[in-house]
Amino acid sequence: MRVISTLCLTVLVGFSSIAQKDSLFIKRMSDEIMTNGKAYDLLYELTKKIGGRLAGSPQGQQAAEWGKRNMEALGPDRVFFQSHKMMNWKRGGTDFASIVGVNGESRIQPLAVLALGNSMGSNGMIEAEVLAVANFDELEKRKDEVKGKIVYFHSVFDPTKIQTFRAYGESGVYRRSGASRAAKYGAVGIMIHSLSTAPDNAPHTGSMVYDPAYPKIPAVAVGPDDAKMLYALAKKGKVQMQMQTYGYFLPEFEDRNVVAEIKGSEFPNEYITLGGHLDSWDVNEGAHDDGAGVVHTMEVLRVMKALNYKPKRTIRFVLFANEENGVRGGNEYANQAKLNNENHIMALESDEGGFTPRSIGMTASKEAFKKFQAWSSLLKPYGCEVTFGGSGTDIGPLARINPATVIAGLVPDSQRYFDLHHAKTDVFENVNKRELLLGAVNIAAIIYLVDQYGVNP
Amino acid sequence: MRVISTLCLTVLVGFSSIAQKDSLFIKRMSDEIMTNGKAYDLLYELTKKIGGRLAGSPQGQQAAEWGKRNMEALGPDRVFFQSHKMMNWKRGGTDFASIVGVNGESRIQPLAVLALGNSMGSNGMIEAEVLAVANFDELEKRKDEVKGKIVYFHSVFDPTKIQTFRAYGESGVYRRSGASRAAKYGAVGIMIHSLSTAPDNAPHTGSMVYDPAYPKIPAVAVGPDDAKMLYALAKKGKVQMQMQTYGYFLPEFEDRNVVAEIKGSEFPNEYITLGGHLDSWDVNEGAHDDGAGVVHTMEVLRVMKALNYKPKRTIRFVLFANEENGVRGGNEYANQAKLNNENHIMALESDEGGFTPRSIGMTASKEAFKKFQAWSSLLKPYGCEVTFGGSGTDIGPLARINPATVIAGLVPDSQRYFDLHHAKTDVFENVNKRELLLGAVNIAAIIYLVDQYGVNP
Repeated sequence: MRVISTLCLTVLVGFSSIAQKDSLFIKRMSDEIMTNGKAYDLLYELTKKIGGRLAGSPQGQQAAEWGKRNMEALGPDRVFFQSHKMMNWKRGGTDFASIVGVNGESRIQPLAVLALGNSMGSNGMIEAEVLAVANFDELEKRKDEVKGKIVYFHSVFDPTKIQTFRAYGESGVYRRSGASRAAKYGAVGIMIHSLSTAPDNAPHTGSMVYDPAYPKIPAVAVGPDDAKMLYALAKKGKVQMQMQTYGYFLPEFEDRNVVAEIKGSEFPNEYITLGGHLDSWDVNEGAHDDGAGVVHTMEVLRVMKALNYKPKRTIRFVLFANEENGVRGGNEYANQAKLNNENHIMALESDEGGFTPRSIGMTASKEAFKKFQAWSSLLKPYGCEVTFGGSGTDIGPLARINPATVIAGLVPDSQRYFDLHHAKTDVFENVNKRELLLGAVNIAAIIYLVDQYGVNP
Repeated sequence: MRVISTLCLTVLVGFSSIAQKDSLFIKRMSDEIMTNGKAYDLLYELTKKIGGRLAGSPQGQQAAEWGKRNMEALGPDRVFFQSHKMMNWKRGGTDFASIVGVNGESRIQPLAVLALGNSMGSNGMIEAEVLAVANFDELEKRKDEVKGKIVYFHSVFDPTKIQTFRAYGESGVYRRSGASRAAKYGAVGIMIHSLSTAPDNAPHTGSMVYDPAYPKIPAVAVGPDDAKMLYALAKKGKVQMQMQTYGYFLPEFEDRNVVAEIKGSEFPNEYITLGGHLDSWDVNEGAHDDGAGVVHTMEVLRVMKALNYKPKRTIRFVLFANEENGVRGGNEYANQAKLNNENHIMALESDEGGFTPRSIGMTASKEAFKKFQAWSSLLKPYGCEVTFGGSGTDIGPLARINPATVIAGLVPDSQRYFDLHHAKTDVFENVNKRELLLGAVNIAAIIYLVDQYGVNP
């Protein structure tokens, strides 16, 4: 009995002194970030002095230089570029759509629209009747009516989904593949309801992909208010629409991931990556998407250097290129990791905005997850917990190369994200300083814990 | 063994079918609120069509009429006013402060300031040297230097407090009692650092109280940027300041709580109150403070009527008057409850803004709290849990009359609240629709659960 008690005591004291050490260091990082954090000022520079950063744009180039310069100033062991050919889509002009007739009578009513990323221009003004459908099921049922029409998908966001990314997942399929699904039956263009929760009329762009089997018809997203009006009109009568877009591709373009590194002192070939993506759409400042992830990443580097933290494992701070319409940066990072035989034990991305963090999502084996979950109590003072299931577009390729890599994501509160995601409203003014900094606190904490204790159960 | 198993099974099935019924009804309320909620539109009316609503102002009167009319339209069993004499403070003019000299040299530098609520005007322009102190300790140490000076308290918000209300609690004492603490030693005026987390320069007002033993000297809050500049200047040298304020009281004024009621079908004398306060400061629209609480309250009434919910207990939906600078509405509500022998089993206030809800805080006996805590799993899909310790300025008086009353508060995410609290930036544009509605969902859920199961352990 005494032996067992003593053993228990030893274990408990051991655990609690470790936990106390960790809790104190995390508090030091939090205090440093909340007091002296530079994430907000860096975000100001990125959004206001550089601006929108579509892959292939001059601003995209400037952002990479800016990222390298600023990370170098923070004093990691090295900062380097990873160059690769990136997608180079151009919007090409001011997208246009207007109702021109209802039930045979002339009626001019321009709509707020944005062409979808990667969609091709309409080659001049097209005019056609609108076929409005609620979803793909209705499209299939009415496929004989599609030929020569502009199909409008009423891909409205489900407001009852409290986790807004679930609604995005459901409706997002219309943005990504609606054009080819309709082109298959002879549509000449498509329109979708913007993937948005906002009580406004700003249209939201985002990437789409053509199925090479069908014509590359123009595709636009309509602002929420106009979309609802259009659906109501087209369900009752015959709506005639004019539409013009200008999208095209330039030749692929050399662009760059920016990678900063602090070498591990004990396990230098165990890599921990954290990152966000530098590119944004052309129509906004990419403040939440993903300026926030970029400056989160830089802030974690800053706080580790400010507190003179010497990691056991090699930590990589990565600003990815070309996430929005190609994932070329993420793929290149994984390719290089494979070429260089790097053992990536964990990667975390911040790409859900700079809102108050709610959890760190982690995709790992059950056994490893148990270990991570026990760290929830260390994150709780900063509003977070560890939950199962993390992801990030740019770090997904790492897991395809090595399925053992733990893939994690910062999960901020998601209520406001789709108000501004891919719309002109994603600007610096809509980012809150404390919410942004608090994201960096929780990322710093989880990176620290993985660095200290690894990912083995 | 079999008997025990059967018993367990019965209990489990019993519990799970109750939980399932509750979970389904809460989901119905959530879907109704997130889809058809009127809270955002009502908030627009209150903030944009009525505006700032300081107790005693014409807008305060309009707000009460608006609240009664709109709650009547929702069809509760009755809606009535509770009239009482309210505080009637007036700002009286445009508050002014300016540095006029530094180290004996002329230097004109106006500061962004707002007089504190309930503070008295300066009776013309006053001019004096500034004594800048970090806190009351320093004031006490330097009490001999105070006479004839304007004392500046560097009551800066502690940015490391993740729960911002804790920082508010710490710094708030300078706003509330700084004037008399300094007047005791002969100060002719005080200035404080605005109680704010915002990276801007807007000054934040808020209520203060004079100790009748000392002169009622003028008191202002300085915008965060100017406050930091002033502190740095005054710590290094001699700062000469001019200051003028105009505050005064008009005779107390008849104002009104607005109370809607749905009578309980089983326990009509068990009252459950939820509410927010109608009044705001004069300098903003009172959108988060406390328009949000007002429309949360109205939304819960709306959803209960929309789903034809018949409560077992009597539910009161209360829009309190004169919270900001008097708590006269809250006190009157408690007085009336006592006069009418109403048994108030629970009261909840929403007065921490319309941000994403994080928990329902409940102050109750340990045994009762255990029961409430078990409801956390029912709130989890809506982002909330039940935590210990809820409060609300307007419902506090109920607990003083009957300490058995469970006192609860909606606890939204607190990162943005003190950016705009009592400043001109607390306007409709800074409220997010989904975040606001989600607050109503969680309040509706907890009110429903208390109505169904009472508060006895």
